[in-house]
Amino acid sequence: MTEVTPQRVRAAYRALGSGDRDRILEYYAQDLRWLVPGNHPLAGRYEGLDAFLELMGRTHKLTGGTFRMDLEAVLVGEDCSADVCRNTALRAGADEASGSPYERMDYQVFHFMRWRDGRITEGRDGLFGDTAVAFSQFWAPFAPNGDRRD
Amino acid sequence: MTEVTPQRVRAAYRALGSGDRDRILEYYAQDLRWLVPGNHPLAGRYEGLDAFLELMGRTHKLTGGTFRMDLEAVLVGEDCSADVCRNTALRAGADEASGSPYERMDYQVFHFMRWRDGRITEGRDGLFGDTAVAFSQFWAPFAPNGDRRD
Amino acid sequence: MTEVTPQRVRAAYRALGSGDRDRILEYYAQDLRWLVPGNHPLAGRYEGLDAFLELMGRTHKLTGGTFRMDLEAVLVGEDCSADVCRNTALRAGADEASGSPYERMDYQVFHFMRWRDGRITEGRDGLFGDTAVAFSQFWAPFAPNGDRRD
Amino acid sequence: MTEVTPQRVRAAYRALGSGDRDRILEYYAQDLRWLVPGNHPLAGRYEGLDAFLELMGRTHKLTGGTFRMDLEAVLVGEDCSADVCRNTALRAGADEASGSPYERMDYQVFHFMRWRDGRITEGRDGLFGDTAVAFSQFWAPFAPNGDRRD
Repeated sequence: MTEVTPQRVRAAYRALGSGDRDRILEYYAQDLRWLVPGNHPLAGRYEGLDAFLELMGRTHKLTGGTFRMDLEAVLVGEDCSADVCRNTALRAGADEASGSPYERMDYQVFHFMRWRDGRITEGRDGLFGDTAVAFSQFWAPFAPNGDRRD
Repeated sequence: MTEVTPQRVRAAYRALGSGDRDRILEYYAQDLRWLVPGNHPLAGRYEGLDAFLELMGRTHKLTGGTFRMDLEAVLVGEDCSADVCRNTALRAGADEASGSPYERMDYQVFHFMRWRDGRITEGRDGLFGDTAVAFSQFWAPFAPNGDRRD
Repeated sequence: MTEVTPQRVRAAYRALGSGDRDRILEYYAQDLRWLVPGNHPLAGRYEGLDAFLELMGRTHKLTGGTFRMDLEAVLVGEDCSADVCRNTALRAGADEASGSPYERMDYQVFHFMRWRDGRITEGRDGLFGDTAVAFSQFWAPFAPNGDRRD
Repeated sequence: MTEVTPQRVRAAYRALGSGDRDRILEYYAQDLRWLVPGNHPLAGRYEGLDAFLELMGRTHKLTGGTFRMDLEAVLVGEDCSADVCRNTALRAGADEASGSPYERMDYQVFHFMRWRDGRITEGRDGLFGDTAVAFSQFWAPFAPNGDRRD
């Protein structure tokens, strides 16, 4: 049995960032389930690593590659880990100076993950304060003026 | 110039319900803009009659043809109309007995519309009380348990 | 029986703005019910004219007297009226230049009212697009940084 | 320096549950800050232990003493802890059988806490999936039918 350690959590994030599927599979289970908060177009539970990676690809595309998660705290428990990331992103096509919650993400996100045999089997994101609202605005299917994005 | 009358508002709804494009064009402008409330997948502003009719088609499909709008009040003003509809619907595939806000819609919606030369050029939906929340839950991209819908 | 006319709707707003109770009672029923949207501290249904006027007093106080409703459209139907107002306000104590949705209100609000014998017996506010979210943020019990207001 | 351990986190919860102020002060700093999510009447940041304990008192009262937090997972990191609780509660006066989100709470909440010298100095609650919505509904100032609670 592989214990969950802060080092392993950090390595999982690095593997995910590498985009290298074999490396990702060392940390994420094939039957991974992931729950995204809110009721915007990306929200809900994703079943399986493929669906999760496709989600990652969508967030990358929708933000023109600006989406970043910077680990600020890593915590471990029995067969589980948690972390707090500062997430930053700008919707693709938005003005660099935009401060609209529909275009700019810059707040902390909490992740809670279940592990089994050294791999993440379940993950859930959460938000603090009133940023659950901002999170749903960021992934809304329209620009700040209400026009639907293609 | 064609005045906006309650009769004309009701006729517009009947035309929309008929699905007959020529008849619809008697009441809805080709450059119609329509704003759907919330930040769920269907929300935002639709540009043009085609986009609006495609939206109508999606609501029909997502609700397995159960989506209904029953006119309860019609009001007119200068170059504008408003109405209150009781909207009812069940998400496609949901249990008939479901009372979950993610599957069952049953509340009043108001519409505010601008008219020009006898045709609707702009429409906006709105909700009362806390049903804006329920409306976003209904169109959320997942089932009541969080699983994403295909 | 007194018919609902645009003139009478406008007169009701003027009476409400005057703060003169006797004049208000010419247009608002003693047993008025009023539903405020959202789930913030001011939301929900107010029973009776006194509760409604107390609400008006609270909105005045919470906005340092800046709360305004400018009528942009008035519509009438059978025993009912509707109107669209542009509502503007700044939370008391906020910086004049603040554009935060927690401090600045500037969007259209829809009102639907039932009348009986020349008086409003029921009113409900509604919002368009994603402003139901902004409306709940404006009346939230905290400043933009999350600190609770006294 | 006192290290943050799962045992200490559990002891802090027990102290809080005891209501014994001296015992609480062994785990919670006098200048504690606590952020409650959402934009309902209880939301926002509470400054100081007294404000936090008053909040605890309000949640107790508003739920007729039914509010419970059952620890399901405890995690620790450097000068911080996190935990996942299953929170259950019924609004005071609600029917025992009520399943309305405005009256019934039954979902997981996570807490992220910063510690200094063995005491919690900062805490933030968060929610998973779409329960941030349910959480704001639960603490809304009205009953499921919209009537404001006294």
